[in-house]
Amino acid sequence: MLKRERMNRILDRSEADVLLISDPYAIWYLCEKRLFPGERFLGLLIGKDREPVLFLNELFRFEEEIGIQKQYITDTDTADRLLKDAIGHTGILGVDKTLPARFLLPVMEAGIADRYINGSPAVDHTRAVKDAEETALMRRSSQINDMAMERFKKLVRPQVTEKEVAAQIMDIYLELGAHDFSFPPIVAFGVNAADPHHMPDDTVLKEGDTVLFDVGCKYSNYCSDMTRTFFYKKEPSAEQKRVYDLVRRANEEAEAAVRPGVRLCDIDSIARDIITEGGFGKDFTHRLGHFIGLEDHEYGDVSQSFEDRTEAGNIFSIEPGIYNKEILGCRIEDLVLVTEDGCEVLNQYPHEIEIIE
Amino acid sequence: MLKRERMNRILDRSEADVLLISDPYAIWYLCEKRLFPGERFLGLLIGKDREPVLFLNELFRFEEEIGIQKQYITDTDTADRLLKDAIGHTGILGVDKTLPARFLLPVMEAGIADRYINGSPAVDHTRAVKDAEETALMRRSSQINDMAMERFKKLVRPQVTEKEVAAQIMDIYLELGAHDFSFPPIVAFGVNAADPHHMPDDTVLKEGDTVLFDVGCKYSNYCSDMTRTFFYKKEPSAEQKRVYDLVRRANEEAEAAVRPGVRLCDIDSIARDIITEGGFGKDFTHRLGHFIGLEDHEYGDVSQSFEDRTEAGNIFSIEPGIYNKEILGCRIEDLVLVTEDGCEVLNQYPHEIEIIE
Repeated sequence: MLKRERMNRILDRSEADVLLISDPYAIWYLCEKRLFPGERFLGLLIGKDREPVLFLNELFRFEEEIGIQKQYITDTDTADRLLKDAIGHTGILGVDKTLPARFLLPVMEAGIADRYINGSPAVDHTRAVKDAEETALMRRSSQINDMAMERFKKLVRPQVTEKEVAAQIMDIYLELGAHDFSFPPIVAFGVNAADPHHMPDDTVLKEGDTVLFDVGCKYSNYCSDMTRTFFYKKEPSAEQKRVYDLVRRANEEAEAAVRPGVRLCDIDSIARDIITEGGFGKDFTHRLGHFIGLEDHEYGDVSQSFEDRTEAGNIFSIEPGIYNKEILGCRIEDLVLVTEDGCEVLNQYPHEIEIIE
Repeated sequence: MLKRERMNRILDRSEADVLLISDPYAIWYLCEKRLFPGERFLGLLIGKDREPVLFLNELFRFEEEIGIQKQYITDTDTADRLLKDAIGHTGILGVDKTLPARFLLPVMEAGIADRYINGSPAVDHTRAVKDAEETALMRRSSQINDMAMERFKKLVRPQVTEKEVAAQIMDIYLELGAHDFSFPPIVAFGVNAADPHHMPDDTVLKEGDTVLFDVGCKYSNYCSDMTRTFFYKKEPSAEQKRVYDLVRRANEEAEAAVRPGVRLCDIDSIARDIITEGGFGKDFTHRLGHFIGLEDHEYGDVSQSFEDRTEAGNIFSIEPGIYNKEILGCRIEDLVLVTEDGCEVLNQYPHEIEIIE
C-alpha cells in the first residue's frame, strides 16, 4: 500500500483537514495512474479519517483497479457540488497551487470549509523525497542517459547540423530501453552553446566548435537530465580550458558538499563562488539546479533564494555553466541523490575535457 | 487604438470594476504581444477609469512600445502586493478562470476587493467576435489549409506510413506561407480513422483504406482546422457511401443553418439528428464544433450543452463524424464565419467522395 503511505505522509505534513489534489502529476504519483483530462475536472480528495476518492470524467473511464475509489463524473457535474456532497463541511481545505479560479471560486462560494489554503507544499515536499522504488528508476534512467551520451558523440560528423543530430537522439534512447524524452534535447554548436536556452537549429558544425548536449530520457516514466560540453577536432585554447575547468570545479565541489541537512542555497553558493572568483560570475546566469522525478522540473531549486535543507531521497541537478560568447559556452550537469550520509552522483559520464575527432 | 477598443468591449461586458487578465493568449489578444513566462506571474490589469498596466517579469523585458504601460517585476514580487499597490481596494475584482490558486488565495487574503468573480466570460465573449483584421487572417489561414490539402493527398503512396505522411506536412505549410501547425496533424488510415483521437503511427497504407486528414496551420498566428476523409485506390462500398453521405449532409445542413442569432446547441442538433436518423447516432461521439482563433480551441462550443446564440464575427468548426470500426471512420470539417446575414464557409476544399489513385 505504497500509495496510502504517500497519502499519509502528505496529510501528516499538512495543516489541512482535507486536500483536493488536481495536478495530474501529483495524482499520477499518488494513484500510479497517468490521467491527463485536459480542461476537464480531475480531483483526488484525501483527508484524515476519510477514504480517498478520485473524481474522473467518464470520458476517461478505465477498468483497472487502483486501490482507490473512483467516482465518475460528467460534463454537467461541477467541482463545487461534488465537493459539497463528498465533504459537507470541513475546517481547512487545502487545494493545489495550480487549481484554476474557475474551480476554486465556486468551491469557496459553496462554503465547504472555514478556511482555504494552498495545499501544495505538503505534496511537493513529499514528492521531493524519493522512495526506494523511485530511486531505482531514477538511477536506471540516468544510467541510460550515460550510455546514450557515448552514442550521441558519434552523431557528431563533418557538416552535420544541430537539428540533424537532435533528430537521431530518440532512436538511441528507445534502443537503450527508455521510452521518451524528459524534455526536447538541446544540441548546441560553437557560440550557440553560450545561450543556455538555445534550441537545435540549422547551424552547421565547424572544426574547433564546442558541442553541447543537454539531454534526458524517461525510464518507466522517471526522468534523467545531463549536460556535457565537448570540443570538435581541436584542442581548446588555454582560455577555454580555464573556463571549462571553472565549470568542472564548480560542479564537482558543489556535488561534494551534498549531504542531508544542507541548505540548497549554500550548495548554489559553492558553485557560484568558484565561478565568480574565477571572474565569470556574470556569465553564470541561472540557478545551479532543480529537482526532478516524474517531471523534469519538479518543486525545489538549488538557487540563492531557496533556503530549504536537503533530505535523504532528494534528487536534483547540479548544472553550473559559463555563457561567454567571446570565449566559451559550457555547462556540466549531473543528477545527484542525497543519501543517508552523503550523495550519490547518478551520472557517471566523465567530466574531463574530451575532443571528438 | 484597436487594443483599447478590445479592452473597452471587455469592460462593458463585465460587472467587474477591475479585471486581472493572466491568460497569455488573452494578453496576446489585448496587447498584441506574445508573452509566455511559464510559471512566472504575468498580469494585465484593466479597469473602468484606470490606465491599463502590464505586469511582466524582468526576465522577459522587451523594448518595443505596445501602447500599454509595462511594469517590470522580479521573482520576489508577489501578485498580491503588486495588486494591492496598483488597486488599493475595489468593489469587484474579476480574475481569469485559469488564475492558479497560488496567486488567487493570497490576493483574496490581502483584501483587495469586496468580491471576486470569474472575469473570463467577458474576455471570452469578446474574443469570440472576430474583428475585420482577425477575420482576414483566419480566412487566409483556411485558404492555405485548402491549398495544402491538395498537396497532402499527393503524399499518399503505396507502403507509406501515417507517420511518414505526417512528417511532411509542416514543409508544405511553410512553403505555402504558414508558420506553424495549429495542432499536431492527424493522419489516419483504415480503421484508425474510426478513432477520433488517433495520432499518426507506423500503420502502413493498404488498398481500400480510408485516409483521414485533420489538419491546421497558423497564418500570422491565426489558426485553421479542416478534416477530409479520402479513399485509397478503391471505390467505397455502398454501406460506406451511405455513412459518408450522412456525414456530408450533417456538415452541409448544419452549415446552411449558420447565421446570427441561432443557438449553438440547435446547430449541433441539426447535424446530430441527421446522423441519428441515419442510424449512427451512437457513433457520433463528440460535439459538432469548437470556436477557434489565436488558439485552435477557444471558448465556445457547438454542442448540446452550449445554448449561447451566434453573433456576427464568430468563427467555429462544423465537424460531424461517424466512427464505426466495422464500416467506416469518417469526419468532414470546415471552419465557418458568422456574417451579418448568414455564413461564410472558410474552407473551399470539396466535400465529394474522392478516390486517391
